[in-house]
Amino acid sequence: MSAEPTELPQDPNAPRLYLALVHYPVKDRAGATVTTSVTNLDVHDIARSARTFGVRRYYVVTPIELQHTLVRRILEHWTTGAGRKRMPERWEALSLAEPVVSLEQAIEDATKREGERPRLLVTAARAPKDRPLTSVADARGWLRDRAHPYMLILGTGHGLAESLLAGADHQLEPLDSGTGYNHLSVRAAAAIYLDRLLGR
Amino acid sequence: MSAEPTELPQDPNAPRLYLALVHYPVKDRAGATVTTSVTNLDVHDIARSARTFGVRRYYVVTPIELQHTLVRRILEHWTTGAGRKRMPERWEALSLAEPVVSLEQAIEDATKREGERPRLLVTAARAPKDRPLTSVADARGWLRDRAHPYMLILGTGHGLAESLLAGADHQLEPLDSGTGYNHLSVRAAAAIYLDRLLGR
Repeated sequence: MSAEPTELPQDPNAPRLYLALVHYPVKDRAGATVTTSVTNLDVHDIARSARTFGVRRYYVVTPIELQHTLVRRILEHWTTGAGRKRMPERWEALSLAEPVVSLEQAIEDATKREGERPRLLVTAARAPKDRPLTSVADARGWLRDRAHPYMLILGTGHGLAESLLAGADHQLEPLDSGTGYNHLSVRAAAAIYLDRLLGR
Repeated sequence: MSAEPTELPQDPNAPRLYLALVHYPVKDRAGATVTTSVTNLDVHDIARSARTFGVRRYYVVTPIELQHTLVRRILEHWTTGAGRKRMPERWEALSLAEPVVSLEQAIEDATKREGERPRLLVTAARAPKDRPLTSVADARGWLRDRAHPYMLILGTGHGLAESLLAGADHQLEPLDSGTGYNHLSVRAAAAIYLDRLLGR
């Protein structure tokens, strides 16, 4: 088993985009900062979307070490042995996923891979009052230019904590659909952002 | 409780689009026709995406009556009583969802609501060899014109059975991302198709 590669070979022409799914610090319904639980389906669905659009690495951010064990078990099931043989397209997707204790750790890993700190693109369901928004069209252009690496950051629960939003390089415009209803699942939001940023 | 409305009032300007998630007839990994199980998360995630983009009704298609009981329990939990009070945005989404025994039953319900049989837009991960594809741009134009109702049909498992694909009015182009990897979850595919068809 040790002879099997644990990561896909990186396509040098792939977009320089990394993805982080944050479980801390995020908001609960009342706006308090909490840690949410990692779910099996978030790992799977978002890894499949990441692989579909050519994302370089998908970080599952949680400070809870026990949940790293859970994520590693999911990854091992599909990236080694029988699971990998039976559904090779799952290993391709899940080999992109990696549990990390903090967003900073995700950034460090991406920095090592790129030789340059990725610029942080945060997302939220509502526009902030006091900061400018970046259009998806602009971010799409930057990714096409490939001059710098970027990290798209999504929050679980009721979204990324304010400290994290305020500290990022760019906040992307919300996925406004015109209906006034804005309660997409994080799995759906990840799929739509990736499609808008990288889809044809 | 009987005084509470069970459906949102229909916005007359909403897109004339219905959504069906099919659990039979669909393909398994080997291409055989099977019935898949309804999952809690498919009901929730896709209802939230449907509500976000203004879809008129979301049909959960399965011939297994026991699974209708399951779906109705999910809907009741969130559309009445404490669940509805605690998370009103969930009731808004889930009030769109409805279990039906067959695609034909979904079509009949939509026909009653529209006074006209909806035109069927099927989806698949691969393009067929012997039938033309409809571009998402064309379908988007039809929805904007509002001249006729449409139903977007998504398959669980390994996709809609061939009989269903061949009998539809239009097959939409696959969600090609250019990477050659095309194994999105049905939740992600639903979100991306709705965004491409109805998003701003």
